Amino acid sequence: MIVLNGGSSSGKSGIARCLQAVLPDPWLAFGVDSLIEAMPASMQGSDGGIEFAPDGGVSVGPMFRKLDAAWMEGVAATARAGAGVIVDDVFLGGAASQQRWQKVLAGLDVLWVGVRCERAVAAGREVARGDRVQGMAALQAEVVHQGVVYDLEVDTTHTEALDCAQRIATHIRSQA
Amino acid sequence: MIVLNGGSSSGKSGIARCLQAVLPDPWLAFGVDSLIEAMPASMQGSDGGIEFAPDGGVSVGPMFRKLDAAWMEGVAATARAGAGVIVDDVFLGGAASQQRWQKVLAGLDVLWVGVRCERAVAAGREVARGDRVQGMAALQAEVVHQGVVYDLEVDTTHTEALDCAQRIATHIRSQA
Amino acid sequence: MIVLNGGSSSGKSGIARCLQAVLPDPWLAFGVDSLIEAMPASMQGSDGGIEFAPDGGVSVGPMFRKLDAAWMEGVAATARAGAGVIVDDVFLGGAASQQRWQKVLAGLDVLWVGVRCERAVAAGREVARGDRVQGMAALQAEVVHQGVVYDLEVDTTHTEALDCAQRIATHIRSQA
Amino acid sequence: MIVLNGGSSSGKSGIARCLQAVLPDPWLAFGVDSLIEAMPASMQGSDGGIEFAPDGGVSVGPMFRKLDAAWMEGVAATARAGAGVIVDDVFLGGAASQQRWQKVLAGLDVLWVGVRCERAVAAGREVARGDRVQGMAALQAEVVHQGVVYDLEVDTTHTEALDCAQRIATHIRSQA
Repeated sequence: MIVLNGGSSSGKSGIARCLQAVLPDPWLAFGVDSLIEAMPASMQGSDGGIEFAPDGGVSVGPMFRKLDAAWMEGVAATARAGAGVIVDDVFLGGAASQQRWQKVLAGLDVLWVGVRCERAVAAGREVARGDRVQGMAALQAEVVHQGVVYDLEVDTTHTEALDCAQRIATHIRSQA
Repeated sequence: MIVLNGGSSSGKSGIARCLQAVLPDPWLAFGVDSLIEAMPASMQGSDGGIEFAPDGGVSVGPMFRKLDAAWMEGVAATARAGAGVIVDDVFLGGAASQQRWQKVLAGLDVLWVGVRCERAVAAGREVARGDRVQGMAALQAEVVHQGVVYDLEVDTTHTEALDCAQRIATHIRSQA
Repeated sequence: MIVLNGGSSSGKSGIARCLQAVLPDPWLAFGVDSLIEAMPASMQGSDGGIEFAPDGGVSVGPMFRKLDAAWMEGVAATARAGAGVIVDDVFLGGAASQQRWQKVLAGLDVLWVGVRCERAVAAGREVARGDRVQGMAALQAEVVHQGVVYDLEVDTTHTEALDCAQRIATHIRSQA
Repeated sequence: MIVLNGGSSSGKSGIARCLQAVLPDPWLAFGVDSLIEAMPASMQGSDGGIEFAPDGGVSVGPMFRKLDAAWMEGVAATARAGAGVIVDDVFLGGAASQQRWQKVLAGLDVLWVGVRCERAVAAGREVARGDRVQGMAALQAEVVHQGVVYDLEVDTTHTEALDCAQRIATHIRSQA
């Protein structure tokens, strides 16, 4: 099980897809985007759901958190059932977010990977994508790593997603 | 937990989204499309993965089945963790597919819903979508229901997705 | 050249894709969605651009109108260059919108098609799609047809997109 | 009018979106992806249409070329009507492709921009995207630039899309 944590537009899903291409067995990739996709459309912008402020701020309420917690249990069960699982997430709560995952993933062999990207570069990639609320990348770039403990950190500022993925794959092989 | 089974282009995901809108609490919706999205790109068209023949035939191999089985455990765990879960699937194996789900969902309160659509109408909607291998809708329209036992069946041939969803929601309320 | 006019979620793009499948030659399909896709992301929600109010209301400003007018000239030139062109639009201004197209398409052989759908049914399909501002379908269902003159009208309330497309194709054949 | 030419996964559309963000007026962005989207689904993989070989090779037939030529006239007319237009294309025919555009764009003020990306890096980004036929990026990386004459060249190998866009915008300002 691999957990990728990084801010919006730091390059997590690109790395996840490259990992799926370079790892020897087929792995499933889930992420916070697929979770939001699975939620009712009405959760976006509603009280208790998830709100994207015009400045890029993201706040989540109790309903979001409830579904999120259940989804995390599902991700853990998928891994326990024997599938390789890559999950990408945005630890809005820093260390507290990691602790929630640690509890859910107890007993599983987890590789914690920090995906860093310099704030200005991530903000530029957000513009190039064109499909995100502008400002999220900058606001999340550092805060999501606060107090989080990693086995490995990669930085997409000057390193391609495929190279980051190869470093992670090498690390996994060396642990096996 | 609600399981929607029907052929390609029978209208399952439209019903799932309407259910998310009409059910009182927020439910998560997963489906075979989100599973394929989570798999490595290389699973499509590969031995052991999933192959879409030009005539609309779909065949899955052992690697697909392994990831599929793990994903089903994850869906079950999400529901056991307390989230309302709607899953849409295509029971390519008919009754055998249902039995696999029944085993995984043991102990959960499940509503089995058959989503039917006349073959010719589903085939026409496949053309209107424009993003599917042509022929799947016709090939799957009846075979996916063979030997499957439902609590409720809806037919999108002449009934809108929202009306189907409301019938399902009424059924759930009457059971509560 | 075929112009399809109808409210949001009335089924215009499904009919366009079916027309592409049933017409003898290959036709290009453009629409208001592809225009918005071609605009800067910042046009959405900005003064002078296009605003989607929470109740489904849509208002466009001078910058939107300027790009829209230039895009219409491009659509006309594509048809004049000899390609079959299907365009789907939402005549927010009713007859005035049609007059703008008539001016731009002067000299071209145009089939004007009204795509109707009962307000409540279109609103339900908007829920089933899950990717549109709720309320647009109901607000636009009738107003976009006010004062507009058609060669042919289809109604997707009880008729499938493919059947509507076949009626349009038959009409074209009978005119040829 | 800005024409961006580069191989698949060289970063053209990211640059186009950044240009839309940094240029003072609103510009429309069209590209070969939007053209393919506008074509009938049946054009993909058909004789006379466009074929993507498993090794990443792309070949186009007479029907594709006919629609392509008409679409180019439409792009030119949009620019002539007064809108700023950014078009991204893949000059599979090198200098011959440029000549076709030059003919269509006659009389317009055009900035020709080459978007380069080292073959291996583009191939890696193709893996990270996960939605393209693998191999296109490598096959197209150099051949699309053969004999093409540019006003400006950018290289996304080590330069971010936003920085490339800013260089292009500065060039435009200096010409004005």
